[in-house]
Amino acid sequence: MLPESGTELSIVEVAPRDGLQNEAIVLAPKLRAEFIRRLTSTGISRIEAGSFVNPKWIPAMAGTADVFAELDGLNGVRLSALTPNARGFADACATSVGEVAVFMSASETHNQKNTNCSTQESVDRFAPILEQSTALGLRVRGYLSVVAGCPYEGSVAVSRVVRLGSRLLEMGCYELSLGDTIGVATPRQIHTLMDGFAAEGIDSDRLAWHLHDTRGTALANVVAGLERGVRTFDASAGGLGGCPYAPGASGNVATEDVVYLADQMGLSTGIDLDALVDVSGWMAEHLGKAPVSRVWQAMWSAKETR
Amino acid sequence: MLPESGTELSIVEVAPRDGLQNEAIVLAPKLRAEFIRRLTSTGISRIEAGSFVNPKWIPAMAGTADVFAELDGLNGVRLSALTPNARGFADACATSVGEVAVFMSASETHNQKNTNCSTQESVDRFAPILEQSTALGLRVRGYLSVVAGCPYEGSVAVSRVVRLGSRLLEMGCYELSLGDTIGVATPRQIHTLMDGFAAEGIDSDRLAWHLHDTRGTALANVVAGLERGVRTFDASAGGLGGCPYAPGASGNVATEDVVYLADQMGLSTGIDLDALVDVSGWMAEHLGKAPVSRVWQAMWSAKETR
Repeated sequence: MLPESGTELSIVEVAPRDGLQNEAIVLAPKLRAEFIRRLTSTGISRIEAGSFVNPKWIPAMAGTADVFAELDGLNGVRLSALTPNARGFADACATSVGEVAVFMSASETHNQKNTNCSTQESVDRFAPILEQSTALGLRVRGYLSVVAGCPYEGSVAVSRVVRLGSRLLEMGCYELSLGDTIGVATPRQIHTLMDGFAAEGIDSDRLAWHLHDTRGTALANVVAGLERGVRTFDASAGGLGGCPYAPGASGNVATEDVVYLADQMGLSTGIDLDALVDVSGWMAEHLGKAPVSRVWQAMWSAKETR
Repeated sequence: MLPESGTELSIVEVAPRDGLQNEAIVLAPKLRAEFIRRLTSTGISRIEAGSFVNPKWIPAMAGTADVFAELDGLNGVRLSALTPNARGFADACATSVGEVAVFMSASETHNQKNTNCSTQESVDRFAPILEQSTALGLRVRGYLSVVAGCPYEGSVAVSRVVRLGSRLLEMGCYELSLGDTIGVATPRQIHTLMDGFAAEGIDSDRLAWHLHDTRGTALANVVAGLERGVRTFDASAGGLGGCPYAPGASGNVATEDVVYLADQMGLSTGIDLDALVDVSGWMAEHLGKAPVSRVWQAMWSAKETR
């Protein structure tokens, strides 16, 4: 059943990290901070601001500490950063980061290619991060990717997704973000995975969906999540990010598209859609290409012909 | 509830009419016929092949009779044509047309701008067409557009949509295609409209949805229709058509996107997705631009990098 009118949704804006990381142009920390500041002004209250990884591997996230320094004192927003290991976690703790996130893949091959270790080794690496963060009173979000399909292995067993996801929650992650990293999911799969977590006694309020619109199914999957009680969705302003496995194709579901859907269904996100379209338009000029967001395209062309 | 695995869906392919009519380049009847022939070879079994309108108003549909002449004897497909009035109906009857379609808008202003008459006058014009077609044993499909919102009037009352739609069915249309012409609908609206028709005792098997993906909600709306028992959906190969109200934005939901969704949910359309991607790619070369279909983009780029 669809949520009642007035229900509040929580949008986790991932464009400054997951979005920019997959764009061809690398932006300076100052500009990334300005992007985050502008996103915050639209009413977005949770933002993935960067990643404490080796800049040799991910140049787009170099200077994440500087991004946080630029934003020191910014109010009304929870800023998070990805911390793949103890080193990244230590770096994050030296900044004004509000929460951190750990990430792993549901498939062995994707985890191996993405983080160069097995899923068990990922879990082992997270243990001290979760212990320390608890001691520091820092919240940790868990990301589990390729839950609906892996670019290397194909289908991924529901039991595997539920087992690894449950482990992350047991270890202390306050929320688990389930990633359809290659954008293959359809609503039936969302329901099947939600069934799997429900059978383990995991409430939908501890789950979020991180959906990609590579095959146009993202909003259908958001609605399936809504029908199952999920209220938190990751999204990327303008649909920034692309899909690393299909050059030229769409990646992250666009925040504009999710907010439009929510607005029209009487759900509250606290985000001003019109202002958001302007911010994505501003960022598009820096990246030299138009956002792939359907709503952005419709609203922007309406603005231009006005 | 989602339909059981194995459920058959009926796709009405509208690219050769609704798609091409909204593209900048006008194609010759021979090429349009070749497009239809290729679409048929993918397993598509219902195609909107043209429109018997004054070519002065819609040059892209000039020579629709020639399209039908080219396709005479084509098996395994039901070809239909739009007939706005008695003159168009007479022209259609002189060809090998398998069924015809009448169309009107749910809002007065859109009907006035689109067909230059009131909704009551539209209904009056259809009466003789439906009488004659019954006598000839020719099926008539009814299209009701802007049911989820009008570009001139904004929201359209559910009672109005249900009243006009019911009228078309009572007059003898075998199926009513409900059009979200400007792509503003979300699943809640689909459910509300389905409630409205159900309250009038109209079964979902007499209803079809004609959805646009202008704001990324098309597949979410398809799923809402599926949950309410609708099994027939209009779609346009490659997403051909654009949106006349937002230049550059997406229009008709892409057949590729609907077929992908159906395939992944275990529903049967009888359409070979891979073959369809090739046909849309072939048409894209004639139109000089890439299809907007998300699935086409993902599958085509995968083909190209193979």
